[in-house]
Amino acid sequence: MCGKLTVVSKPSSHQGIAALSDAVAGAAEPLETLVKVDTGLGRVGVAPGAATVDLARSVAAAPWLRFGGVCAHEGFTYGLPDPEERTAAARAGVEALVETAEALSAVGLPAARVSVGATPGINALATMPGVTEIRPGNYVFYDAMQVGLGAAPLDHCALRVLATVVSHAARDRAVIDAGSKTLTTDRGAHGQTTAGSYGVIVGREDIHIERLSEEHGWLRLDPAGSDVEIGDTLEIVPVHACPVANLAHELTVVRDDTVIGRWAVAAAGQVR
Amino acid sequence: MCGKLTVVSKPSSHQGIAALSDAVAGAAEPLETLVKVDTGLGRVGVAPGAATVDLARSVAAAPWLRFGGVCAHEGFTYGLPDPEERTAAARAGVEALVETAEALSAVGLPAARVSVGATPGINALATMPGVTEIRPGNYVFYDAMQVGLGAAPLDHCALRVLATVVSHAARDRAVIDAGSKTLTTDRGAHGQTTAGSYGVIVGREDIHIERLSEEHGWLRLDPAGSDVEIGDTLEIVPVHACPVANLAHELTVVRDDTVIGRWAVAAAGQVR
Repeated sequence: MCGKLTVVSKPSSHQGIAALSDAVAGAAEPLETLVKVDTGLGRVGVAPGAATVDLARSVAAAPWLRFGGVCAHEGFTYGLPDPEERTAAARAGVEALVETAEALSAVGLPAARVSVGATPGINALATMPGVTEIRPGNYVFYDAMQVGLGAAPLDHCALRVLATVVSHAARDRAVIDAGSKTLTTDRGAHGQTTAGSYGVIVGREDIHIERLSEEHGWLRLDPAGSDVEIGDTLEIVPVHACPVANLAHELTVVRDDTVIGRWAVAAAGQVR
Repeated sequence: MCGKLTVVSKPSSHQGIAALSDAVAGAAEPLETLVKVDTGLGRVGVAPGAATVDLARSVAAAPWLRFGGVCAHEGFTYGLPDPEERTAAARAGVEALVETAEALSAVGLPAARVSVGATPGINALATMPGVTEIRPGNYVFYDAMQVGLGAAPLDHCALRVLATVVSHAARDRAVIDAGSKTLTTDRGAHGQTTAGSYGVIVGREDIHIERLSEEHGWLRLDPAGSDVEIGDTLEIVPVHACPVANLAHELTVVRDDTVIGRWAVAAAGQVR
Protein backbone atom coordinates (compact mmCIF):
# COMPACT_ATOMS: atom_id res chain seq x y z
CA MET A 1 0.00 0.00 0.00
CA CYS A 2 2.79 2.42 0.92
CA GLY A 3 5.90 3.45 -0.88
CA LYS A 4 9.21 3.77 0.92
CA LEU A 5 8.70 5.59 4.21
CA THR A 6 10.79 8.72 4.10
CA VAL A 7 11.68 10.86 7.06
CA VAL A 8 11.31 14.45 5.99
CA SER A 9 11.86 17.48 8.17
CA LYS A 10 10.19 20.84 7.66
CA PRO A 11 11.95 23.72 9.38
CA SER A 12 10.92 27.31 8.83
CA SER A 13 13.74 29.27 10.44
CA HIS A 14 17.52 29.50 10.38
CA GLN A 15 17.58 28.36 14.01
CA GLY A 16 15.49 25.33 13.10
CA ILE A 17 17.79 24.43 10.23
CA ALA A 18 20.91 24.69 12.41
CA ALA A 19 19.34 22.60 15.18
CA LEU A 20 18.23 19.99 12.69
CA SER A 21 21.62 19.71 11.03
CA ASP A 22 23.28 19.33 14.44
CA ALA A 23 20.76 16.67 15.45
CA VAL A 24 21.57 14.43 12.49
CA ALA A 25 25.31 15.12 12.38
CA GLY A 26 27.22 11.98 11.45
CA ALA A 27 24.25 10.23 9.80
CA ALA A 28 24.98 7.92 6.85
CA GLU A 29 23.14 10.20 4.47
CA PRO A 30 21.88 13.78 4.70
CA LEU A 31 18.31 14.37 5.91
CA GLU A 32 15.87 15.35 3.20
CA THR A 33 14.58 18.75 4.25
CA LEU A 34 11.66 20.77 2.91
CA VAL A 35 11.13 24.41 3.73
CA LYS A 36 7.73 25.04 5.30
CA VAL A 37 5.95 27.90 3.56
CA ASP A 38 3.07 29.92 5.00
CA THR A 39 0.54 30.18 2.18
CA GLY A 40 -2.15 31.82 4.30
CA LEU A 41 -2.72 29.84 7.48
CA GLY A 42 -0.52 32.14 9.56
CA ARG A 43 0.82 29.41 11.81
CA VAL A 44 4.34 28.21 11.03
CA GLY A 45 6.33 28.68 7.85
CA VAL A 46 7.92 31.58 6.03
CA ALA A 47 6.43 33.77 3.34
CA PRO A 48 6.54 32.47 -0.25
CA GLY A 49 9.15 34.04 -2.52
CA ALA A 50 12.38 35.60 -1.29
CA ALA A 51 12.10 34.45 2.35
CA THR A 52 11.70 30.85 1.23
CA VAL A 53 14.61 31.09 -1.19
CA ASP A 54 16.75 32.45 1.65
CA LEU A 55 15.89 29.47 3.87
CA ALA A 56 16.37 26.97 1.03
CA ARG A 57 19.92 28.34 0.60
CA SER A 58 20.46 27.84 4.31
CA VAL A 59 19.28 24.22 4.05
CA ALA A 60 21.52 23.58 1.06
CA ALA A 61 24.49 24.99 2.96
CA ALA A 62 23.82 22.97 6.14
CA PRO A 63 26.34 20.11 6.42
CA TRP A 64 23.90 17.28 7.22
CA LEU A 65 20.82 18.33 5.31
CA ARG A 66 19.73 17.98 1.70
CA PHE A 67 17.26 20.48 0.24
CA GLY A 68 14.23 18.51 -0.92
CA GLY A 69 11.64 21.13 -1.77
CA VAL A 70 8.81 23.12 -0.24
CA CYS A 71 5.59 22.28 1.56
CA ALA A 72 2.51 24.08 2.86
CA HIS A 73 -0.66 23.32 4.77
CA GLU A 74 -3.81 25.06 3.52
CA GLY A 75 -5.50 24.81 6.92
CA PHE A 76 -7.26 28.13 6.33
CA THR A 77 -9.67 26.21 4.07
CA TYR A 78 -11.43 24.98 7.25
CA GLY A 79 -12.50 28.54 7.99
CA LEU A 80 -14.13 29.11 4.60
CA PRO A 81 -17.61 27.54 4.41
CA ASP A 82 -18.30 28.68 0.84
CA PRO A 83 -16.86 26.02 -1.52
CA GLU A 84 -15.95 28.44 -4.30
CA GLU A 85 -14.26 30.88 -1.96
CA ARG A 86 -12.44 27.95 -0.32
CA THR A 87 -11.18 26.56 -3.61
CA ALA A 88 -10.09 29.99 -4.83
CA ALA A 89 -8.18 30.73 -1.61
CA ALA A 90 -6.51 27.31 -1.60
CA ARG A 91 -5.51 27.66 -5.24
CA ALA A 92 -4.07 31.11 -4.66
CA GLY A 93 -1.94 29.78 -1.83
CA VAL A 94 -0.71 26.85 -3.86
CA GLU A 95 0.03 29.09 -6.85
CA ALA A 96 2.31 31.13 -4.60
CA LEU A 97 4.03 27.91 -3.55
CA VAL A 98 4.51 26.75 -7.15
CA GLU A 99 5.86 30.18 -8.14
CA THR A 100 8.30 29.93 -5.26
CA ALA A 101 9.41 26.52 -6.51
CA GLU A 102 10.05 28.12 -9.93
CA ALA A 103 12.08 30.89 -8.30
CA LEU A 104 14.11 28.21 -6.50
CA SER A 105 14.83 26.42 -9.78
CA ALA A 106 15.97 29.72 -11.25
CA VAL A 107 18.67 30.04 -8.56
CA GLY A 108 19.83 26.43 -8.91
CA LEU A 109 17.81 24.92 -6.07
CA PRO A 110 15.17 22.79 -7.78
CA ALA A 111 12.35 21.71 -5.45
CA ALA A 112 11.93 17.98 -6.01
CA ARG A 113 8.86 18.08 -3.81
CA VAL A 114 6.11 20.67 -3.92
CA SER A 115 3.87 19.32 -1.23
CA VAL A 116 0.38 20.56 -0.29
CA GLY A 117 -2.31 19.27 2.01
CA ALA A 118 -5.58 19.94 3.85
CA THR A 119 -8.63 17.75 3.37
CA PRO A 120 -11.27 20.36 2.42
CA GLY A 121 -10.83 21.20 -1.22
CA ILE A 122 -7.79 18.96 -1.75
CA ASN A 123 -9.39 17.70 -4.97
CA ALA A 124 -8.97 21.14 -6.50
CA LEU A 125 -5.26 21.17 -5.63
CA ALA A 126 -4.23 17.63 -6.49
CA THR A 127 -4.06 18.26 -10.22
CA MET A 128 -2.54 21.73 -10.20
CA PRO A 129 0.58 21.98 -12.37
CA GLY A 130 3.73 22.04 -10.28
CA VAL A 131 2.28 20.14 -7.31
CA THR A 132 4.15 16.86 -6.79
CA GLU A 133 2.66 15.60 -3.53
CA ILE A 134 -0.60 15.87 -1.58
CA ARG A 135 -0.98 15.18 2.14
CA PRO A 136 -4.68 15.32 3.00
CA GLY A 137 -5.00 13.66 6.40
CA ASN A 138 -8.54 13.75 7.67
CA TYR A 139 -9.91 12.01 4.56
CA VAL A 140 -8.83 8.64 6.00
CA PHE A 141 -11.92 8.85 8.21
CA TYR A 142 -13.73 12.12 7.46
CA ASP A 143 -15.92 13.55 10.23
CA ALA A 144 -18.84 15.86 11.03
CA MET A 145 -16.62 18.88 10.40
CA GLN A 146 -15.98 17.76 6.83
CA VAL A 147 -19.71 17.05 6.41
CA GLY A 148 -20.41 20.60 7.59
CA LEU A 149 -17.97 21.91 4.99
CA GLY A 150 -19.54 19.84 2.23
CA ALA A 151 -16.27 17.95 1.78
CA ALA A 152 -17.86 14.56 2.44
CA PRO A 153 -21.35 13.09 2.93
CA LEU A 154 -22.15 11.59 6.34
CA ASP A 155 -22.04 8.01 5.06
CA HIS A 156 -18.41 8.46 4.01
CA CYS A 157 -17.44 9.08 7.63
CA ALA A 158 -15.70 5.90 8.70
CA LEU A 159 -14.88 6.61 12.35
CA ARG A 160 -17.87 5.98 14.59
CA VAL A 161 -18.13 5.98 18.36
CA LEU A 162 -20.65 3.57 19.88
CA ALA A 163 -22.15 4.95 23.08
CA THR A 164 -24.80 3.64 25.45
CA VAL A 165 -27.59 5.70 27.01
CA VAL A 166 -26.98 5.36 30.75
CA SER A 167 -29.42 7.89 32.18
CA HIS A 168 -32.69 9.53 31.17
CA ALA A 169 -33.50 11.47 34.30
CA ALA A 170 -35.48 14.30 32.69
CA ARG A 171 -37.90 14.40 29.78
CA ASP A 172 -35.56 16.56 27.68
CA ARG A 173 -32.26 15.08 28.82
CA ALA A 174 -30.42 11.79 28.54
CA VAL A 175 -26.79 10.96 29.17
CA ILE A 176 -24.44 8.64 27.27
CA ASP A 177 -21.25 6.99 28.45
CA ALA A 178 -19.04 8.92 26.03
CA GLY A 179 -17.62 12.24 27.17
CA SER A 180 -14.60 14.40 26.42
CA LYS A 181 -12.23 11.47 26.98
CA THR A 182 -13.85 9.79 23.99
CA LEU A 183 -15.32 12.49 21.72
CA THR A 184 -12.99 15.35 22.77
CA THR A 185 -14.17 18.92 23.26
CA ASP A 186 -12.75 19.76 19.82
CA ARG A 187 -15.40 21.75 17.96
CA GLY A 188 -13.47 22.23 14.75
CA ALA A 189 -10.05 22.99 13.35
CA HIS A 190 -8.65 26.32 12.23
CA GLY A 191 -11.64 28.47 13.04
CA GLN A 192 -14.26 26.21 11.54
CA THR A 193 -16.83 25.16 14.13
CA THR A 194 -19.68 22.70 14.14
CA ALA A 195 -22.43 24.41 16.07
CA GLY A 196 -24.84 22.74 18.38
CA SER A 197 -23.40 19.29 18.96
CA TYR A 198 -20.26 17.38 19.89
CA GLY A 199 -21.02 14.85 17.17
CA VAL A 200 -23.72 13.67 14.78
CA ILE A 201 -25.82 10.75 16.03
CA VAL A 202 -26.43 8.60 12.97
CA GLY A 203 -30.14 8.28 12.24
CA ARG A 204 -30.92 10.58 15.18
CA GLU A 205 -29.70 13.89 13.85
CA ASP A 206 -32.52 15.52 15.87
CA ILE A 207 -30.65 14.79 19.10
CA HIS A 208 -27.82 17.13 20.02
CA ILE A 209 -24.86 16.21 22.19
CA GLU A 210 -25.05 19.48 24.03
CA ARG A 211 -22.34 19.20 26.63
CA LEU A 212 -19.52 16.88 27.64
CA SER A 213 -18.09 15.92 30.98
CA GLU A 214 -15.09 13.63 30.93
CA GLU A 215 -17.09 10.39 30.97
CA HIS A 216 -20.58 11.69 30.18
CA GLY A 217 -22.24 13.19 27.11
CA TRP A 218 -25.39 15.23 27.73
CA LEU A 219 -28.09 14.73 25.11
CA ARG A 220 -30.71 17.43 24.55
CA LEU A 221 -33.99 15.73 23.64
CA ASP A 222 -37.25 17.09 22.31
CA PRO A 223 -39.07 18.34 25.43
CA ALA A 224 -42.34 17.11 23.88
CA GLY A 225 -41.03 13.57 24.31
CA SER A 226 -38.41 11.21 22.91
CA ASP A 227 -38.19 7.47 22.37
CA VAL A 228 -34.57 7.34 23.61
CA GLU A 229 -34.27 4.72 26.36
CA ILE A 230 -31.66 3.66 28.87
CA GLY A 231 -29.58 0.91 27.27
CA ASP A 232 -29.92 2.23 23.69
CA THR A 233 -26.74 2.14 21.62
CA LEU A 234 -26.08 5.30 19.62
CA GLU A 235 -23.62 5.56 16.73
CA ILE A 236 -21.81 8.88 16.69
CA VAL A 237 -19.79 10.55 13.94
CA PRO A 238 -17.43 12.80 15.88
CA VAL A 239 -16.86 16.46 15.05
CA HIS A 240 -13.10 15.99 14.55
CA ALA A 241 -11.94 12.42 13.91
CA CYS A 242 -8.21 13.00 14.40
CA PRO A 243 -8.08 13.64 18.18
CA VAL A 244 -10.80 11.00 18.71
CA ALA A 245 -8.65 8.31 17.08
CA ASN A 246 -5.74 9.56 19.20
CA LEU A 247 -7.73 8.95 22.41
CA ALA A 248 -8.52 5.34 21.56
CA HIS A 249 -5.89 2.65 21.84
CA GLU A 250 -7.67 0.25 19.55
CA LEU A 251 -10.08 0.65 16.65
CA THR A 252 -12.61 -2.07 15.82
CA VAL A 253 -12.77 -2.51 12.05
CA VAL A 254 -16.21 -3.33 10.64
CA ARG A 255 -17.20 -4.24 7.08
CA ASP A 256 -20.83 -5.03 6.21
CA ASP A 257 -21.74 -5.27 9.90
CA THR A 258 -19.01 -7.82 10.55
CA VAL A 259 -15.95 -7.21 12.70
CA ILE A 260 -12.97 -7.96 10.47
CA GLY A 261 -10.13 -6.69 12.60
CA ARG A 262 -8.78 -4.66 15.45
CA TRP A 263 -6.20 -1.99 14.82
CA ALA A 264 -3.88 -0.70 17.50
CA VAL A 265 -3.48 3.08 17.49
CA ALA A 266 0.29 2.90 17.63
CA ALA A 267 0.91 6.64 17.87
CA ALA A 268 -1.54 7.34 20.74
CA GLY A 269 0.20 9.12 23.58
CA GLN A 270 3.46 9.42 21.66
CA VAL A 271 3.52 13.23 21.71
CA ARG A 272 6.65 14.04 23.72
CA MET B 1 -1.79 5.56 51.48
CA CYS B 2 -5.02 3.90 50.40
CA GLY B 3 -7.52 1.82 52.32
CA LYS B 4 -9.04 -1.27 50.82
CA LEU B 5 -10.04 -0.66 47.23
CA THR B 6 -13.77 -1.16 46.98
CA VAL B 7 -15.74 -1.52 43.78
CA VAL B 8 -18.85 0.56 44.16
CA SER B 9 -21.54 1.01 41.56
CA LYS B 10 -23.78 4.05 41.30
CA PRO B 11 -26.94 3.45 39.28
CA SER B 12 -29.70 6.03 39.09
CA SER B 13 -32.56 4.11 37.46
CA HIS B 14 -34.50 0.88 37.90
CA GLN B 15 -33.13 -0.32 34.55
CA GLY B 16 -29.58 0.37 35.75
CA ILE B 17 -30.16 -1.55 38.96
CA ALA B 18 -31.59 -4.56 37.13
CA ALA B 19 -28.73 -4.59 34.60
CA LEU B 20 -26.16 -4.32 37.38
CA SER B 21 -27.66 -7.15 39.42
CA ASP B 22 -27.73 -9.37 36.34
CA ALA B 23 -24.13 -8.46 35.53
CA VAL B 24 -22.83 -9.64 38.92
CA ALA B 25 -25.17 -12.64 39.32
CA GLY B 26 -23.37 -15.54 40.96
CA ALA B 27 -20.67 -13.40 42.58
CA ALA B 28 -19.26 -14.50 45.94
CA GLU B 29 -20.69 -11.47 47.67
CA PRO B 30 -23.24 -8.83 46.69
CA LEU B 31 -21.98 -5.65 45.02
CA GLU B 32 -22.01 -2.58 47.21
CA THR B 33 -24.30 -0.13 45.45
CA LEU B 34 -24.89 3.56 46.10
CA VAL B 35 -27.77 5.48 44.60
CA LYS B 36 -26.61 8.47 42.59
CA VAL B 37 -28.50 11.59 43.60
CA ASP B 38 -28.79 14.76 41.52
CA THR B 39 -28.18 17.61 43.96
CA GLY B 40 -28.19 20.32 41.31
CA LEU B 41 -25.83 19.40 38.47
CA GLY B 42 -28.65 18.10 36.28
CA ARG B 43 -26.58 15.34 34.70
CA VAL B 44 -27.24 11.85 36.04
CA GLY B 45 -28.92 10.86 39.30
CA VAL B 46 -32.41 11.04 40.74
CA ALA B 47 -33.92 13.79 42.85
CA PRO B 48 -33.20 13.76 46.58
CA GLY B 49 -36.02 12.54 48.82
CA ALA B 50 -38.75 10.14 47.71
CA ALA B 51 -37.23 9.24 44.31
CA THR B 52 -33.97 8.22 45.99
CA VAL B 53 -35.80 6.19 48.65
CA ASP B 54 -37.67 4.40 45.86
CA LEU B 55 -34.42 3.44 44.11
CA ALA B 56 -32.75 2.44 47.38
CA ARG B 57 -35.61 -0.01 47.95
CA SER B 58 -35.04 -1.36 44.45
CA VAL B 59 -31.32 -1.86 45.20
CA ALA B 60 -32.10 -3.59 48.51
CA ALA B 61 -34.51 -5.93 46.73
CA ALA B 62 -32.09 -6.78 43.89
CA PRO B 63 -30.70 -10.29 44.41
CA TRP B 64 -26.99 -9.55 43.83
CA LEU B 65 -26.69 -6.00 45.19
CA ARG B 66 -26.29 -4.57 48.66
CA PHE B 67 -27.50 -1.03 49.37
CA GLY B 68 -24.48 0.97 50.52
CA GLY B 69 -25.71 4.56 50.62
CA VAL B 70 -25.99 7.66 48.47
CA CYS B 71 -23.60 9.81 46.49
CA ALA B 72 -23.63 13.08 44.58
CA HIS B 73 -21.30 15.23 42.48
CA GLU B 74 -21.54 18.98 43.06
CA GLY B 75 -20.18 19.77 39.60
CA PHE B 76 -22.35 22.89 39.41
CA THR B 77 -19.79 24.57 41.68
CA TYR B 78 -17.57 25.02 38.61
CA GLY B 79 -20.14 27.40 37.15
CA LEU B 80 -20.25 29.69 40.20
CA PRO B 81 -17.29 32.10 40.27
CA ASP B 82 -18.36 33.82 43.50
CA PRO B 83 -16.91 31.80 46.42
CA GLU B 84 -19.75 32.56 48.83
CA GLU B 85 -22.44 31.71 46.31
CA ARG B 86 -20.51 28.54 45.41
CA THR B 87 -20.23 27.40 49.00
CA ALA B 88 -23.88 28.14 49.72
CA ALA B 89 -25.06 26.21 46.65
CA ALA B 90 -22.80 23.24 47.39
CA ARG B 91 -23.96 23.15 51.02
CA ALA B 92 -27.61 23.30 50.00
CA GLY B 93 -27.11 20.34 47.68
CA VAL B 94 -25.31 18.32 50.32
CA GLU B 95 -27.94 19.18 52.94
CA ALA B 96 -30.56 17.66 50.64
CA LEU B 97 -28.38 14.56 50.35
CA VAL B 98 -27.96 14.27 54.12
CA GLU B 99 -31.71 14.75 54.65
CA THR B 100 -32.31 11.98 52.14
CA ALA B 101 -29.95 9.73 54.09
CA GLU B 102 -32.00 10.46 57.21
CA ALA B 103 -35.21 9.59 55.36
CA LEU B 104 -33.58 6.31 54.28
CA SER B 105 -32.67 5.48 57.89
CA ALA B 106 -36.26 6.16 58.89
CA VAL B 107 -37.49 3.46 56.48
CA GLY B 108 -34.90 0.92 57.59
CA LEU B 109 -32.33 1.55 54.85
CA PRO B 110 -29.42 3.25 56.61
CA ALA B 111 -26.93 4.84 54.20
CA ALA B 112 -23.50 3.68 55.35
CA ARG B 113 -21.94 6.04 52.83
CA VAL B 114 -23.00 9.61 52.20
CA SER B 115 -20.48 10.52 49.55
CA VAL B 116 -19.88 13.98 48.03
CA GLY B 117 -17.27 15.38 45.70
CA ALA B 118 -16.17 18.25 43.44
CA THR B 119 -12.89 20.06 43.97
CA PRO B 120 -14.07 23.71 44.15
CA GLY B 121 -15.39 24.33 47.63
CA ILE B 122 -14.89 20.75 48.85
CA ASN B 123 -13.37 22.16 52.04
CA ALA B 124 -16.76 23.58 53.00
CA LEU B 125 -18.40 20.17 52.55
CA ALA B 126 -15.85 17.86 54.11
CA THR B 127 -16.86 18.65 57.68
CA MET B 128 -20.62 18.82 57.23
CA PRO B 129 -22.50 16.56 59.65
CA GLY B 130 -23.79 13.44 57.94
CA VAL B 131 -21.13 13.36 55.19
CA THR B 132 -19.03 10.19 55.47
CA GLU B 133 -16.89 10.38 52.32
CA ILE B 134 -15.43 13.03 49.99
CA ARG B 135 -14.26 12.41 46.47
CA PRO B 136 -12.58 15.58 45.17
CA GLY B 137 -10.60 14.53 42.10
CA ASN B 138 -8.93 17.50 40.43
CA TYR B 139 -7.12 18.50 43.64
CA VAL B 140 -4.48 15.82 42.97
CA PHE B 141 -3.01 18.24 40.42
CA TYR B 142 -5.14 21.41 40.39
CA ASP B 143 -5.11 23.47 37.20
CA ALA B 144 -5.73 26.92 35.70
CA MET B 145 -9.48 26.39 36.01
CA GLN B 146 -9.16 25.96 39.78
CA VAL B 147 -6.88 29.01 39.90
CA GLY B 148 -9.55 30.98 38.05
CA LEU B 149 -12.11 29.87 40.63
CA GLY B 150 -9.86 30.84 43.53
CA ALA B 151 -9.75 27.20 44.65
CA ALA B 152 -5.95 27.00 44.43
CA PRO B 153 -3.00 29.34 43.82
CA LEU B 154 -0.94 28.80 40.68
CA ASP B 155 2.03 27.37 42.58
CA HIS B 156 -0.15 24.54 43.90
CA CYS B 157 -0.75 23.32 40.34
CA ALA B 158 1.38 20.20 40.05
CA LEU B 159 0.77 19.16 36.45
CA ARG B 160 2.95 21.13 34.04
CA VAL B 161 3.47 20.71 30.32
CA LEU B 162 6.91 21.62 28.99
CA ALA B 163 6.72 22.98 25.47
CA THR B 164 9.33 24.35 23.09
CA VAL B 165 8.96 27.42 20.91
CA VAL B 166 9.38 26.09 17.36
CA SER B 167 8.42 29.10 15.26
CA HIS B 168 8.36 32.88 15.60
CA ALA B 169 7.35 33.90 12.13
CA ALA B 170 5.60 37.16 13.00
CA ARG B 171 6.30 39.84 15.57
CA ASP B 172 3.11 39.08 17.50
CA ARG B 173 3.02 35.31 16.99
CA ALA B 174 5.06 32.33 18.05
CA VAL B 175 4.19 28.63 17.96
CA ILE B 176 4.96 25.89 20.48
CA ASP B 177 5.09 22.14 19.94
CA ALA B 178 2.10 21.46 22.22
CA GLY B 179 -1.36 21.46 20.68
CA SER B 180 -4.72 19.86 21.35
CA LYS B 181 -3.17 16.39 21.57
CA THR B 182 -1.25 17.61 24.61
CA LEU B 183 -3.20 20.50 26.19
CA THR B 184 -6.68 19.49 24.92
CA THR B 185 -9.25 22.01 23.69
CA ASP B 186 -11.00 21.71 27.06
CA ARG B 187 -11.74 25.25 28.25
CA GLY B 188 -13.39 24.29 31.52
CA ALA B 189 -15.78 21.87 33.14
CA HIS B 190 -19.48 22.29 33.78
CA GLY B 191 -19.93 25.72 32.28
CA GLN B 192 -16.89 27.32 33.86
CA THR B 193 -14.51 28.69 31.26
CA THR B 194 -11.03 30.12 31.35
CA ALA B 195 -11.07 32.94 28.88
CA GLY B 196 -8.24 33.94 26.65
CA SER B 197 -5.81 31.05 26.85
CA TYR B 198 -5.46 27.28 26.61
CA GLY B 199 -3.17 27.33 29.63
CA VAL B 200 -1.15 29.61 31.89
CA ILE B 201 2.52 29.98 30.94
CA VAL B 202 4.37 30.12 34.26
CA GLY B 203 6.28 33.38 34.62
CA ARG B 204 4.92 34.54 31.27
CA GLU B 205 1.29 35.16 32.13
CA ASP B 206 1.37 38.00 29.57
CA ILE B 207 1.50 35.46 26.72
CA HIS B 208 -1.77 33.83 25.72
CA ILE B 209 -2.08 30.44 24.08
CA GLU B 210 -4.69 31.71 21.69
CA ARG B 211 -5.41 28.74 19.48
CA LEU B 212 -4.52 25.08 19.20
CA SER B 213 -3.97 22.80 16.24
CA GLU B 214 -3.33 19.17 17.01
CA GLU B 215 0.44 19.51 17.34
CA HIS B 216 0.81 23.30 17.51
CA GLY B 217 -0.09 25.95 20.08
CA TRP B 218 -0.39 29.50 18.77
CA LEU B 219 1.02 32.14 21.13
CA ARG B 220 -0.22 35.72 20.93
CA LEU B 221 2.67 38.04 21.76
CA ASP B 222 2.82 41.73 22.48
CA PRO B 223 2.89 43.36 19.01
CA ALA B 224 5.30 45.97 20.39
CA GLY B 225 7.87 43.20 20.74
CA SER B 226 8.61 40.11 22.81
CA ASP B 227 11.73 38.36 24.02
CA VAL B 228 10.35 34.91 23.19
CA GLU B 229 12.81 33.01 21.00
CA ILE B 230 12.82 29.80 19.02
CA GLY B 231 14.11 27.05 21.29
CA ASP B 232 12.74 28.55 24.52
CA THR B 233 11.15 26.06 26.90
CA LEU B 234 7.83 27.20 28.37
CA GLU B 235 6.18 25.65 31.41
CA ILE B 236 2.41 25.51 31.06
CA VAL B 237 -0.28 24.93 33.67
CA PRO B 238 -3.14 23.50 31.63
CA VAL B 239 -6.72 24.73 31.87
CA HIS B 240 -8.07 21.30 32.84
CA ALA B 241 -5.53 18.84 34.21
CA CYS B 242 -7.71 15.70 34.03
CA PRO B 243 -7.92 15.22 30.24
CA VAL B 244 -4.29 16.36 29.88
CA ALA B 245 -3.07 13.58 32.19
CA ASN B 246 -5.28 11.18 30.20
CA LEU B 247 -3.49 12.12 26.96
CA ALA B 248 -0.03 11.38 28.33
CA HIS B 249 1.17 7.83 28.81
CA GLU B 250 3.85 8.75 31.28
CA LEU B 251 4.30 11.57 33.79
CA THR B 252 7.76 12.74 34.81
CA VAL B 253 7.83 13.36 38.56
CA VAL B 254 9.97 16.28 39.70
CA ARG B 255 10.83 17.38 43.24
CA ASP B 256 13.09 20.41 43.83
CA ASP B 257 14.13 20.46 40.16
CA THR B 258 15.21 16.81 40.30
CA VAL B 259 13.50 14.01 38.41
CA ILE B 260 12.56 11.43 41.04
CA GLY B 261 10.37 9.12 39.04
CA ARG B 262 8.25 8.30 36.04
CA TRP B 263 4.64 7.30 36.47
CA ALA B 264 2.75 5.34 33.86
CA VAL B 265 -0.78 6.65 33.25
CA ALA B 266 -2.32 3.22 33.54
CA ALA B 267 -5.88 4.28 32.72
CA ALA B 268 -5.08 6.23 29.53
CA GLY B 269 -7.12 4.98 26.62
CA GLN B 270 -9.09 2.57 28.79
CA VAL B 271 -12.46 4.17 28.06
CA ARG B 272 -14.37 1.42 26.24
